[in-house]
Order: sequence, then structure tokens, then C-alpha cells
Amino acid sequence: MVSRRLLTQCKSSSQLRCHRVANPFQSSRRSLSSSATSSRSLPRHTTLFGCALIGLAIASPLVYKMAMAGPLLLDSLTLAERDERTKSEQAVTEASPMRLRMEKFIKEQQKEIVRALEEVDGTPFRIDAWQRKEGGGGITCVLQDGLVFEKAGVGVSVVYGTLPKPAILKMRANHKNIADAENVPDSLEFFAAGLSLVVHPKNPMAPTVHLNYRYFETANPDGSPGAWWFGGGSDLTPSYLFDEDAIQFHKALKEVCDAHDKDYYPRFKKWCDEYFYNKHRGESRGIGGIFFDDLDETVRDKENTFAFIQDGLKSFIPTYIPIINRRKDMPFTEKEKEWQQLRRGKYVEFNLVHDRGTAFGLNTPGARVESILMSLPLTASWQYMHEPAPKSREARLVEVLKNPKEWV
Amino acid sequence: MVSRRLLTQCKSSSQLRCHRVANPFQSSRRSLSSSATSSRSLPRHTTLFGCALIGLAIASPLVYKMAMAGPLLLDSLTLAERDERTKSEQAVTEASPMRLRMEKFIKEQQKEIVRALEEVDGTPFRIDAWQRKEGGGGITCVLQDGLVFEKAGVGVSVVYGTLPKPAILKMRANHKNIADAENVPDSLEFFAAGLSLVVHPKNPMAPTVHLNYRYFETANPDGSPGAWWFGGGSDLTPSYLFDEDAIQFHKALKEVCDAHDKDYYPRFKKWCDEYFYNKHRGESRGIGGIFFDDLDETVRDKENTFAFIQDGLKSFIPTYIPIINRRKDMPFTEKEKEWQQLRRGKYVEFNLVHDRGTAFGLNTPGARVESILMSLPLTASWQYMHEPAPKSREARLVEVLKNPKEWV
Repeated sequence: MVSRRLLTQCKSSSQLRCHRVANPFQSSRRSLSSSATSSRSLPRHTTLFGCALIGLAIASPLVYKMAMAGPLLLDSLTLAERDERTKSEQAVTEASPMRLRMEKFIKEQQKEIVRALEEVDGTPFRIDAWQRKEGGGGITCVLQDGLVFEKAGVGVSVVYGTLPKPAILKMRANHKNIADAENVPDSLEFFAAGLSLVVHPKNPMAPTVHLNYRYFETANPDGSPGAWWFGGGSDLTPSYLFDEDAIQFHKALKEVCDAHDKDYYPRFKKWCDEYFYNKHRGESRGIGGIFFDDLDETVRDKENTFAFIQDGLKSFIPTYIPIINRRKDMPFTEKEKEWQQLRRGKYVEFNLVHDRGTAFGLNTPGARVESILMSLPLTASWQYMHEPAPKSREARLVEVLKNPKEWV
Repeated sequence: MVSRRLLTQCKSSSQLRCHRVANPFQSSRRSLSSSATSSRSLPRHTTLFGCALIGLAIASPLVYKMAMAGPLLLDSLTLAERDERTKSEQAVTEASPMRLRMEKFIKEQQKEIVRALEEVDGTPFRIDAWQRKEGGGGITCVLQDGLVFEKAGVGVSVVYGTLPKPAILKMRANHKNIADAENVPDSLEFFAAGLSLVVHPKNPMAPTVHLNYRYFETANPDGSPGAWWFGGGSDLTPSYLFDEDAIQFHKALKEVCDAHDKDYYPRFKKWCDEYFYNKHRGESRGIGGIFFDDLDETVRDKENTFAFIQDGLKSFIPTYIPIINRRKDMPFTEKEKEWQQLRRGKYVEFNLVHDRGTAFGLNTPGARVESILMSLPLTASWQYMHEPAPKSREARLVEVLKNPKEWV
């Protein structure tokens, strides 16, 4: 979980100074130094005039300094500075370090997903690029109170930092090759990048969806990659259960998993049911999906694992968009909307009480709280001692949440 | 905090079986063995037919067994059984153990407060008495979606249990006399009782209020009291700040404090500002009040501390009722209601992320979750990157939440 947690420890030091930029995605691409290129122009809505300038103002002297320093001083550069230099010198290809390939990939996917959701809703996302003064930054895209979506957040974080010795020792439990047992260093540079999304539709017949894919890497003193692992998954949270949606969602994830390893789906499906569990309620947050962490070389080589991650993330649009299109215009009653609001309350409970990433992020000084809490719904409700009527559709959902089903 | 946490570890094993009782307060008085008597008949709304019967079914054979066992076997009784016997034999007076006096006092106060809030709203509370199979029980009173109150919860818990050695060692940090350093027992019986309330009014001009008073005691092997302490406090959370209300609220608490110790108010006011702090937002939950814990014989003797607790709890009605009466019918706009909903969101964040009592309760298997979460509002909202307009009333509130004021 640590890699996931680290993604949330980011803050925009210039958050309040940033407003209005012609094309924030392009500006942030430059300021945050992703070398991803895209022929598509992204929505021009809102935010972040200063950010791009501040980003360039920081980045340009740095690149100049690095260029002047020459290769002999390369060892004195931080991992962030090395990557900054690499990106300024050449395009990201399959031969580039995984850090840069993952960053490029998730930023491209963020654009694709934002575009696909905007097409469904007809409302543009607000796009905030932000920087983390310790290294890295992110792009948070939020669509709020749209026509179809109550709230949709798609966020990318790219974090550079230093692990202190206690963190290294803790990570050794799952990743022996992070350091030699007899020679644990006092600190290690790390890189963490991930894409997170949560979509809460307005129509109570349309399910909430969550997704997260992430990569974590430590650097050896010479800058070469040390330990690495991927994590991720996606899960569905309906207020009203349509078996058709649940089956389609799980089937798509199973297909992605099976193409890489027949053991993945059953293992990651179970992991998901266990992780997204509101244990104080004795019920799952939703009807699951897949969840995994610590996919490292003890499971599969880096290249194949990255391919799996890519397939997982790329399956989001073709899986969720048909579901939302089927449900977004269905008729519903006030009572059904009320039930959705109660389910939203349980979603908030999971995220604030049990989700380790959220808790860790919120307890980290300097975190960009608004990016962490973009996962919360626009509205939620709690009714004391609410019980769905016996044999109702609401009761059937709760029954499935208490006893997770095998959908495929 | 431990005493506070323990109050939340309760479960109604018969929760789902309990419906409709003519006078639940009276039934619960018998089944939960409070010897409090009241000439006033309480609202007859809802719940708990079976509970009283189950309570009697459990209690009667127990009392019979105890009576048959005779005094020589008294040492083999649990603390709960001893108290049960005492209450069945004689009325609670000033000479009774503090456990019984506190239980009687908070149950009386619960009735008074419920009656006062019902009078303001015109809607009866739902009253649920519940039992904890390990010993003790509680009464949870909730008024939901009333005319004046969105949600008002007034709960009493009385818990008997056993502390394991690690818990005793932890408590020794603040309470040396819980056990001899060289002779820490493997377990100790404890008693914990408290009253908690949270009131969320509908009108955004009317403030939310929270209150909790609690007593904790451990038992020596012979049943005599070991360590003991009181905790408590009350705090106000307005969406719109009326200095008049804040001053009145703090003044009332200061008067209660000053009558007992001039050091109490400044110390407990500061403690409150520090405790009810949403640190991830960098702002207080509300405009404070008082908060304290661990009031034991190192601070003041038991009798005087109980007198202070009584005065604190008794000051609730004369302090809050005039405030709610001033605000409940004020005109407000849709925008102001929206702001209240956003403030509700922050209230949920504090309770689910930072409140130690809630977190501990929710993570305790078998807790009565609905009693713990009665503190949550009926509805709440989260808007990404919401900022109040400069120099607005909303901005002034946030300013005060970021920089707590001295109100008296």
C-alpha cells in the first residue's frame, strides 16, 4: 500500500495563485515535463495561468544548470533532475526508464478518459495542474454537477522523494531487493506515479466507478532502478444492482487478467472484495472488481507487468461508457434518489474511515487535500437505523454486499 | 481518551428483534437496571418491545441466583452483577457507588434534554434501548428530519467489561494508581458510562452543538473502586457566525468552570480548540467550547469533580435552547443552505477521520454502529475547490476557524 499512499502526499504550493490558462494540459505538460505529445487539443476550461509560468521559471534554469554541469557531475543530480534532463533531451520511447513511460502513459490515458466522460456529459472538466515543491506534481481534472455526472475526478500524480530508513525497513517486508539486509541505507530516492479516478453519476440507476493504477520505484545511488512494483485495480459501486452491468464489468476485467495470467482474476477479485470492505457495516463498498499491489519481479517481469497495467487502464472506457450510457437516462423516483444518497454515505464512510491511501494522505502535512478528496460524492446522506424493505431491490443489493458474488 | 472510546464498544444483540414498547424509557429503566425514577412520562414513540422482555428474562434469574448464592460468594460476582444486585435492593443515593450515581444522573439528563428538544421541534424522538451482551447497555434517542432539527441524537451508554494487560499498561501513563508498577494484573474489570449528544438544526443560521460527559472506573478484585476519572465538554459548530451566540455559549461554560476552578476554562477551552481540529484542512471543526479528559484525584476529589460534571451537563438546556430559538426561524437563501451542507461535509470529515472515539468504535467488532454514527448529519456535501467569496460571511467564519478566538 505504501506506493499508493505516497501518491497522495502532494501539494500545490502555487495552488491559490493559479488561474486561467489557454491550454492547461499542454502547459502542464511542459511545466511538469511530461514529454507526452498529443495531436488533440484538450478542453480549455478554467485555471492555472501562473502554474505554467512558475513551472517554466523553475524548470528552465534547472535544465540550463544541468546542461552546464556536464556528465561528470551527473551523480550529484537527484532522480527528479535526471529525469527532467532526460525528458528535455529526448522523446520517451520503449527504451526509456519505466518512470518516464508510466508517466507518459497515465497522462495520455487521463486525457482520453476526460475526453470520453466529457462526451457523455457535455460539460467540460476543470483542470488543475499543480507542482510539489519536493519534486514532481500532478494534474487533477474534476467535472462537478454536470448533466450526467454528479462528480467525476480523474487525477494523475507524479512524485519524487526520499524514503527514510524506517520506511525502507518496512518496505523490505514485501520487497527484499529494496536493500541488502546487512546494509540498509539511511535513505533512498523514490519515484511514484499513478492515475486515480472516481465517477459518481447523478442517476441512481447508474453505478459509481473507481479505478487506480500506480507504479513505484526506488533508485540506486547511481540512479539505476532499485526495487519496483505496480499496483492497481478497478471496482464498481451501484446503488441499484443490474446483473448485466456487474457481469460486463467483471468479464472485462477477467479478460484483461486472463490475457496475462489465469491466476490474476480470481486472486485480484478476492483481494478487491477484501480491501473495499466497510467492516464496521459488515458489507462491501460495492460489487467489486479487481485490486492488487506489490506486482514485482517475484510475480512477473517488469515489461509484462507494465503491459498488464496498460491493458487494465485502457479497458476502462470500453467497459464503463456502455454501462453509463445504458443507465444515465433511466427514470427514477425520489425514494430511489434518497437510497442512492444513503449509499453515498457508506461510500464516504469507507473512504474516510478505512481507505489507507486517503487516511495516509490526509494525515500527511502539506498534502493537496482537494485532490485526495475529489473521490467524495457531491452529496451524501445518513439516516439513523435505515433498513431497506424486505425483498426490495435495495435489500437485494445489501444482500450481495454482505455476500460477494462470483459474477463470471 | 480510552474511557471515551470504551463507551462506543456496545452492541444490541437483540437490536433487530426489538419493536414497539409502551414506554421504552421505563422499560429500559427496568431492564437496564437504572433506579432512576421520574414522575414524567416520556414520549411513547416507537421501538423495543422485545428488549424489555429480554432484559427482564436475563436479569431475573440472575438476581435470583445472586440472592441464593448469599454474601459469602459475593467475591465471585462480576462488577456488573454486583451493581445489578445493589440497584435491585436499594435506591441510588449520594452514598451509592459513583457508577450508579453517574448512570442515574445521565439517564435523568437524557430525558430532560430529549423533552426540551422535542418541545422546540414538535416531533417526538425515536428511542432505542439496547443491551450489550458483555455487560451494560444504552439508550439511543434520535429525532430525524424534524421541523427544526435535521438530526438530533442523545445517547447514553453504560458499559461493563474487562481490560487486558496491554490496556492497563497504556492507561498507567495517565493514571498511576490503576495498578502497582511492580504488580500489574493480567486483567481488571472496568465500568464506563457517558452521555453524548449532537444536534444538527435545519436552518443554516442555527449552529450544530455537540456534548459528551463520561465517567470511567476500574474495580479492585474485592469490587472496591480502583482508578477513576471523568471527561467531557461541549462545543458549537455554526455555519454562519453570530458573535452573540458564540459569546453566550462560551460565557455559560466559563461560568460553570469558574464556579469549580478558575483554571478550568482557559485550560479546557484550549484543549477543545486543539482536539476538534481538522488538521488536514488547517481549521477547527467549529468555534469550540470546552473539552477535557482524565479528571482524577490528581486534579480534584471525586465528589467535587462529579459536581462539576453535573453543572456542565445541566447547563446545556439553558444555554443552547435560547440560541436555537433565536435562529430556527431566520430567513435564509438557497446559497446559504448550500454553504451549511459544505460545512456539514467538514463535520463528517472530522468525525470519521480524526475523532478518536468514533474511529475506535467503528474498528471495534460488535459495536452498535448506528449509535456511534448518530453524530453524522442527515445530509452533507463536498464541492471540489470551493472557496468562499472574499470578505463574505462565509469567509469570516473560515477565518475564525483558522484562528480560534477568545470569546469571553
